[in-house]
Amino acid sequence: MTVSLTQCLHRALQQYPDRLATIHASRRRTYREIHARVASLAGALRAMGVSKGDRVGILSLNSDRYLEVYLAVFWLGAAINPANTRWSAHELAYSFRDCDTRVLFIDDAHLPLADAVHAEAPCVQQWIYLGDAPCPAAMQAYEPLMATAPVDDVGAADRDLAAVFYTGGTTGFPKGVQLSHESIMGAALNRLAQGHPVGPVYLHAAPLFHLAGAMGVFWQFVSGGTHMVIKSFTPLDFMQAVQQEQVSDTLLVPTMVQMVLDHPEFSAYDLGSLKFLVYGASPISETLLDRATTAFPDLQFMQGYGMTELSGCVTYLGPEFHTPAGRARGKLRSAGRAAPMAEVKIVDSEGQELPRGTVGEIAARGMSTMLGYWNKPEETARTLRDGWVHSGDGAYMDEDGFIFIVDRLKDMIVSGGENVYSAEVENAVLKHPAIASCAVIGVPDDKWGERVHAVVVLKPGMDCTPDALSTHCKNLIAGYKCPRSIEFRSELPLSGAGKIMKNRLREAHWSQANRRVN
Amino acid sequence: MTVSLTQCLHRALQQYPDRLATIHASRRRTYREIHARVASLAGALRAMGVSKGDRVGILSLNSDRYLEVYLAVFWLGAAINPANTRWSAHELAYSFRDCDTRVLFIDDAHLPLADAVHAEAPCVQQWIYLGDAPCPAAMQAYEPLMATAPVDDVGAADRDLAAVFYTGGTTGFPKGVQLSHESIMGAALNRLAQGHPVGPVYLHAAPLFHLAGAMGVFWQFVSGGTHMVIKSFTPLDFMQAVQQEQVSDTLLVPTMVQMVLDHPEFSAYDLGSLKFLVYGASPISETLLDRATTAFPDLQFMQGYGMTELSGCVTYLGPEFHTPAGRARGKLRSAGRAAPMAEVKIVDSEGQELPRGTVGEIAARGMSTMLGYWNKPEETARTLRDGWVHSGDGAYMDEDGFIFIVDRLKDMIVSGGENVYSAEVENAVLKHPAIASCAVIGVPDDKWGERVHAVVVLKPGMDCTPDALSTHCKNLIAGYKCPRSIEFRSELPLSGAGKIMKNRLREAHWSQANRRVN
Repeated sequence: MTVSLTQCLHRALQQYPDRLATIHASRRRTYREIHARVASLAGALRAMGVSKGDRVGILSLNSDRYLEVYLAVFWLGAAINPANTRWSAHELAYSFRDCDTRVLFIDDAHLPLADAVHAEAPCVQQWIYLGDAPCPAAMQAYEPLMATAPVDDVGAADRDLAAVFYTGGTTGFPKGVQLSHESIMGAALNRLAQGHPVGPVYLHAAPLFHLAGAMGVFWQFVSGGTHMVIKSFTPLDFMQAVQQEQVSDTLLVPTMVQMVLDHPEFSAYDLGSLKFLVYGASPISETLLDRATTAFPDLQFMQGYGMTELSGCVTYLGPEFHTPAGRARGKLRSAGRAAPMAEVKIVDSEGQELPRGTVGEIAARGMSTMLGYWNKPEETARTLRDGWVHSGDGAYMDEDGFIFIVDRLKDMIVSGGENVYSAEVENAVLKHPAIASCAVIGVPDDKWGERVHAVVVLKPGMDCTPDALSTHCKNLIAGYKCPRSIEFRSELPLSGAGKIMKNRLREAHWSQANRRVN
Repeated sequence: MTVSLTQCLHRALQQYPDRLATIHASRRRTYREIHARVASLAGALRAMGVSKGDRVGILSLNSDRYLEVYLAVFWLGAAINPANTRWSAHELAYSFRDCDTRVLFIDDAHLPLADAVHAEAPCVQQWIYLGDAPCPAAMQAYEPLMATAPVDDVGAADRDLAAVFYTGGTTGFPKGVQLSHESIMGAALNRLAQGHPVGPVYLHAAPLFHLAGAMGVFWQFVSGGTHMVIKSFTPLDFMQAVQQEQVSDTLLVPTMVQMVLDHPEFSAYDLGSLKFLVYGASPISETLLDRATTAFPDLQFMQGYGMTELSGCVTYLGPEFHTPAGRARGKLRSAGRAAPMAEVKIVDSEGQELPRGTVGEIAARGMSTMLGYWNKPEETARTLRDGWVHSGDGAYMDEDGFIFIVDRLKDMIVSGGENVYSAEVENAVLKHPAIASCAVIGVPDDKWGERVHAVVVLKPGMDCTPDALSTHCKNLIAGYKCPRSIEFRSELPLSGAGKIMKNRLREAHWSQANRRVN
């Protein structure tokens, strides 16, 4: 064993067993308690038949238990499959079937989906209820599992499969990204080796099913501090958590920062403990940074750019580029540059590195590179070429190695920090009997950064209202993927080769606004 | 490729090509220059027949070129064999033969050994002269190799062999410790993920053939700062370097710290740029720390403990335990606790973990674990059990996970930061025709921490003076391994089983002094 995601828990028990490990609502647990609970939970999972390499799913909002499940799964050498809480039952069932998830942890918020998931994903045989209400029939309650005899850490490490994270696919089918112990640790190290220590109390506000949240789990476990977990981000829950637990570090997207600053009760909270903020999904605008700097004079800002296939962030834009003097260096609109355990380059369609300033595709590799997609050798070969992950994001690199993202080659929209693939939304829209053709694009939005916008052409003689089309989509895909605005046209602009010219559609919306900047 | 020791150089070229990379005497080179020189030097080595997996030796005091050789060897996927500059020609030749080193870089200081090494190690076919004087016959000069056409980095990474470091052996035969790209990076990360950034200018004062020096090479390359290299440590060279180049970070052993403070010209130098000092080989005494803290009020101290088989340090005692308030926590005499990428435990002779406070052997594992000993499967199996490196060092662990070293199970002496194995010295002493039996132990020494001390019994009717015995030893082993004090006795204390009871010999010397404390 060389690199293992459970080493941090063994070290914690050895060095600071009585330090607070997790806080969630009124629950507070020390590292000694978490260590014992993880060993017991692993024992319970083994008794359910989970062994090395098996997939264990979790469909839940954030909680302290989410962290215990992560660690218990790694303890057994199994792989966690953290399900996207915004997906429909149909999408969820697809992902569970795809990687043969047999055990699923589920919280109160997702119980209403259980029957539908079960109907479509009969492979899920064991259901574990994460809530504190009476346990639903045919499920096992979580807390009683802690009475199971503890088992030893099996010592999974290095390239052993640790997780399968599903991402929306360009073809409309989600892909399972296989990450190892080493790759997840690599992303944590990209943060930890920046030269900025992680503080004593880290707030998990970003969803833990997403690498943006999961990265923070491991950089904080390696640092040995306390995890404060809120169910999901709301400005009020965020401010209450920071004030109550003297939170020092967190990760947000700029949209969330703005929501906090805009909140009517903002000035009623003391948020002065906050010292370090990692943000991602988009650069931060000068206007928002000005407001945030005034509101949080002691806060350091660092932007990260990454993707699930790289276990999280591979570039960072450090705090020194966010200060008044640092901003003069003109890097604030970039996504930063390669982190300590990563290499990044801009390539053409043949994979050849392009000169600085020339737009191409971002490719990256390093300790955090994925193992590949679950059971999709062709997609793996397309994305992972010569060991480099090809991101699908268009960017150029300046003379100092900073990357500036200019477009998404894979036609992806980033709305409120969530990736939405246009192809997937178009598939849903086109299933409506009245729609002839359709193009889905991202358009600038004050609140979400980008908004999912559909341009549709009706079939001759047919009719459909925006509301009806919206309802139609919500039955097929997650709410955040559905078009927030719909525009009817008589035809779409086509290229000579018959392809829809999305750039022309986007131009009208983006001419005044700066793409990817709030 | 996931973890590679050349990634730092690619990143440097991409992000800060014009930053100063190395300084040595009057030579100053940027990262752009170093990148080009390494690619050319790799081309020259390839032309000499070096390919992936081959060993390349270097026998030299520290210089900027030492760093170029390291990187060029990794660039080719070959393995560097950094020779101990204090070894005799006989010992050096053994190590070159042992791992079949065919190319050797040699500096001026070691030219006098060349013939003797060549005679005993004919496997070394290509000699490259690192100096600036006229090139000796049958050698190639270093600088002209920079005109060779550059070659591409072959992309060696992860578990690929990167280095073979020789350590003195308990049996009297040095062992080649095989380290990979991953393991060397693991040791750098143990430092980098401590939460204390490495500063802009790092001074290499410790020898670069030793992991204590080599660790610093990679934590500074990953951090992207400047390497200031002095030929070897002298208090005057150290002080001049710090003042002249505004050195911020370095690594010393406590003996060296004391030599600097004791130097008559100490107060003539401005050493205020020094901000972070890693020290090792022994704890620092309260007295010395007091003096150092007064002399360097802005300096942070961190102790590291490690070994070649772990690519460097796996435990650290952070700055917070060196401050006046921190010292009250009583950890200053410890060697710290497990670093972020490591696990450490205290085990009995069966490998079972012992309760806190019980003395046993230190075992450690993690990202920095060696691959094994070169061509010594039995010794590898003895040291590397279940993936844990068994250090041979005796210690106990306290309730907070700090290890306190109390004895060296493998009977090793640490003198001025160098490891000396008693068995090797005893072998040399016993080759003298007048000596019947002998025991070599470490005894406390104000200057060296420990001193090599020999207790000898003469053969009946034979005679030998301490000077004669000392000269005899110097012909066989390196000077620092030779006994600095010799005691003649009529017999040695033996146990019932006939083993020499070294503890009884040590008691007289150590009863007043605290072992391992200067």
